[in-house]
Amino acid sequence: MEREHNLIPGDTLWKRFLYRIIYRSDTRLGRLFDIVLLSLIFLSTAIIMLESVPKFDKKYHTIFLILEWIISLIFTAEYWLRIAVVKNKKHYIFSFFGIMDFLALVPFYLSLFFPVTKYFLIFRMLRMLRVFRIFNLLDFMNDGFVIVRALKNSSRKIYIFLLFLIIFSVIVGSMMFMVEGGREGFETIPQSIYWAVVTVTTVGYGDVSPITPMGKFFAVVLMLAGYSIIAVPTGIVTAEMRNKRQNLEKVCDRCGNEDIDDDARYCKQCGKKLA
Amino acid sequence: MEREHNLIPGDTLWKRFLYRIIYRSDTRLGRLFDIVLLSLIFLSTAIIMLESVPKFDKKYHTIFLILEWIISLIFTAEYWLRIAVVKNKKHYIFSFFGIMDFLALVPFYLSLFFPVTKYFLIFRMLRMLRVFRIFNLLDFMNDGFVIVRALKNSSRKIYIFLLFLIIFSVIVGSMMFMVEGGREGFETIPQSIYWAVVTVTTVGYGDVSPITPMGKFFAVVLMLAGYSIIAVPTGIVTAEMRNKRQNLEKVCDRCGNEDIDDDARYCKQCGKKLA
Amino acid sequence: MEREHNLIPGDTLWKRFLYRIIYRSDTRLGRLFDIVLLSLIFLSTAIIMLESVPKFDKKYHTIFLILEWIISLIFTAEYWLRIAVVKNKKHYIFSFFGIMDFLALVPFYLSLFFPVTKYFLIFRMLRMLRVFRIFNLLDFMNDGFVIVRALKNSSRKIYIFLLFLIIFSVIVGSMMFMVEGGREGFETIPQSIYWAVVTVTTVGYGDVSPITPMGKFFAVVLMLAGYSIIAVPTGIVTAEMRNKRQNLEKVCDRCGNEDIDDDARYCKQCGKKLA
Amino acid sequence: MEREHNLIPGDTLWKRFLYRIIYRSDTRLGRLFDIVLLSLIFLSTAIIMLESVPKFDKKYHTIFLILEWIISLIFTAEYWLRIAVVKNKKHYIFSFFGIMDFLALVPFYLSLFFPVTKYFLIFRMLRMLRVFRIFNLLDFMNDGFVIVRALKNSSRKIYIFLLFLIIFSVIVGSMMFMVEGGREGFETIPQSIYWAVVTVTTVGYGDVSPITPMGKFFAVVLMLAGYSIIAVPTGIVTAEMRNKRQNLEKVCDRCGNEDIDDDARYCKQCGKKLA
Repeated sequence: MEREHNLIPGDTLWKRFLYRIIYRSDTRLGRLFDIVLLSLIFLSTAIIMLESVPKFDKKYHTIFLILEWIISLIFTAEYWLRIAVVKNKKHYIFSFFGIMDFLALVPFYLSLFFPVTKYFLIFRMLRMLRVFRIFNLLDFMNDGFVIVRALKNSSRKIYIFLLFLIIFSVIVGSMMFMVEGGREGFETIPQSIYWAVVTVTTVGYGDVSPITPMGKFFAVVLMLAGYSIIAVPTGIVTAEMRNKRQNLEKVCDRCGNEDIDDDARYCKQCGKKLA
Repeated sequence: MEREHNLIPGDTLWKRFLYRIIYRSDTRLGRLFDIVLLSLIFLSTAIIMLESVPKFDKKYHTIFLILEWIISLIFTAEYWLRIAVVKNKKHYIFSFFGIMDFLALVPFYLSLFFPVTKYFLIFRMLRMLRVFRIFNLLDFMNDGFVIVRALKNSSRKIYIFLLFLIIFSVIVGSMMFMVEGGREGFETIPQSIYWAVVTVTTVGYGDVSPITPMGKFFAVVLMLAGYSIIAVPTGIVTAEMRNKRQNLEKVCDRCGNEDIDDDARYCKQCGKKLA
Repeated sequence: MEREHNLIPGDTLWKRFLYRIIYRSDTRLGRLFDIVLLSLIFLSTAIIMLESVPKFDKKYHTIFLILEWIISLIFTAEYWLRIAVVKNKKHYIFSFFGIMDFLALVPFYLSLFFPVTKYFLIFRMLRMLRVFRIFNLLDFMNDGFVIVRALKNSSRKIYIFLLFLIIFSVIVGSMMFMVEGGREGFETIPQSIYWAVVTVTTVGYGDVSPITPMGKFFAVVLMLAGYSIIAVPTGIVTAEMRNKRQNLEKVCDRCGNEDIDDDARYCKQCGKKLA
Repeated sequence: MEREHNLIPGDTLWKRFLYRIIYRSDTRLGRLFDIVLLSLIFLSTAIIMLESVPKFDKKYHTIFLILEWIISLIFTAEYWLRIAVVKNKKHYIFSFFGIMDFLALVPFYLSLFFPVTKYFLIFRMLRMLRVFRIFNLLDFMNDGFVIVRALKNSSRKIYIFLLFLIIFSVIVGSMMFMVEGGREGFETIPQSIYWAVVTVTTVGYGDVSPITPMGKFFAVVLMLAGYSIIAVPTGIVTAEMRNKRQNLEKVCDRCGNEDIDDDARYCKQCGKKLA
């Protein structure tokens, strides 16, 4: 995934000018552009939501339709402009935000042929992540990356954990199917697996719950097990997050202390000046 | 937010005398004052709660009303006194507890004109946080600050996490709206988002739960995802809490650096050996 | 709380003999005694549970009654013996298990006069904690103490957290009472507080759930907040548990490394032989 | 539990050839064999699930039956082959996967006599854990072992925690039985214990929920307690997981010490500088 700051503006003057406005937020116009964009994304998301509520849709159907057309055309123009003003166009198109910008347009044009796809417009929300850049929230962005990286680094352990969890749920669900013997909510194995997942994740809707004493006993065992299991993903991510010190290579070359804060100038263990 | 211990008593003798009683708890009268105040806060909160229960309200309506008036007048007098006896009045008024004391009065006087605001009196409970000072629970207070600071320090990461979570819930809710196609509880997108939040936070009321096999499958995926996500805020706060020093008074006496880890033997800023 | 191993057996021979059987498990008879006792506790607990189930109680009422009398008389005799065979009787009586043994008898004799107290016999289960001693599960016992100590050390922070949580729930509940305006499940403030606790702890029975769109929005905010808050107690206990190294005083006197395992003979950071 | 890589292929040429295919995945045929096997496990699991759904079973009953026979015969042949081609047969038979392979067959042959046991075939899913080996996912396997070992190392603490939790739930359940006095869902003590577990684990189905104000108050206390308790298993596993070394191959080449932390520069047992 490419980050946008590697983009190069085009050669002509108007390209440089527009580039500054569209991609940067260090000018008045640039900030205005960003805020207008953000508002349009908000508006667009709100419209999609409200359209799904019959009483609003009945009242404002035409307004919603017109606004959707306007916003989508603006987004299309913006997408086209973003491509136009940069030199390394592919770089933008396949960047994280480039793909987001594209995906934000597709459902609209698709919905002209397949109305059902309209609701995919909700993915436009992802464009709001730009908010970090707009308000120059660099610290926020860094923290975001720390979280994402911690998740990425522990993803392998989480996948394994999920695999265990799925196998566990399938087996437990099947056992429960035998125990409750086709009673309400446990008519089939897939249904029982649904119950097992609802239970082990402690969601517990209650739309399906054990009926027989035997089933309740079984459920109690499962809940207690789930209660212990819940610790595992937390342990994984916590351990990973803690390991993420900004600079992992800093070591005191006198005493070998590796726990060195980013702002440290002297080793806190032996007092040696750090390089 | 200012802390109260920077307040300066007035010049006259009675101001000093009252200051000692009201703001301190190192005299017999001072402790008595604090305990009476605490009891009144308790009583006031209890009355508001009981008033909302028809069978109590019917029986004791007049008593409740009279007590409310008395307590509120006492609190008003107390607030006026607190201002009167200190020299740096603004300091008190805009301190954390000063604002609390003020907010504890407003709803009562407002409710004379807008009855509905009466229930805001429940915010009086926040005054109970003074309990730490009253019983000289300094250690408790410190621990409280450690928790608050850990939350404050990780607040930026938690905001980002919440932003992700909200976007995630909106998208998942919209997908579910398409999957369940307007069935009971999924009639609109906002409704479906409500379901998504209820599910991903593992609250799981069960007032809305998936009906179709497809919806159930989708819900299972969401729950397993939520189960992994739940680890993130825990990891954030845990990592932050671990970093916090127990001893807040450690300062390097050469360079004044206050950011000193518990296990540090040398100042990381100037390399001086710590006492 | 005293531990039993400080007890001193009486002077006469039969006291020493019985002491060995009752308090120790290093002889054949001693182990037999322990196992018989454990079985009786199990049996007693099972009887109380089954008695509460009408269909069992109808069938076996007399048997249950007789067994209860027998077990209680045995426990009484055992309690009397435990006191008789030790020299420092007060030491036993006020030890953790001494109090447990006493409490295990009281409800039975009380229930002769106040039948309702019979169910307190369930507290007999606590005597099962002796199981660690019986099976010489010293390691288990140690781990148990580690957990208890971690909880004890973080108890102050947990109390503060609970106080915050209670104040938070009361305020949120009252707000919701105003929002839902006395609808089903939110008729009174205490009811609404009940809902707030059910929600913020992610239990989510669903017996009370928001009805109006406004209420649902409010609930969503609460759930997201609760989701972040849940991290706090975990962070507290985890941090505390990690801090509990067996020997906290070990430090390498060459490099100051404090992260020294119990079995370490050389500093892992600088290689110095540890004292 | 033995790992498979200690198996020794038989002496004859065809045994070595088959061994390579069956146990390894470093040849084309070996990988093909693994993928076919994995597909059959998937297919077998899917069939069992679908068979439990009446509408599918009605339609495809015969097909399901035939497929089950075919797959089970293939698995039988495979199991026989696995034994045949290795020299140390017992080693395979009692290895983790050897036992899994055996258990994957038993329910099928048992179900010829006792139809009810058929659903135990779902345990075949456990064979899917081989997937790690098949795709040469060594890193995944290592991470899996890290998780399993962390759980194993903290199992003693988790057992103790579960024992506490069970005693806690039994006592709380019995108290609630007295409080709610046989109301719906609290008719018997075992029922009330079921409720206590559902509540303390925050599953909260809502099939049983407190009805009287007293019961609700009691439930609120339990929930807040449970909310604090939930931190304990997380703390246990997190602390354990953090202690675990990432690199399992580090060994001190002077004294053979294998317990080497990631940040160690010297062997803690003999003080030798590590490479």
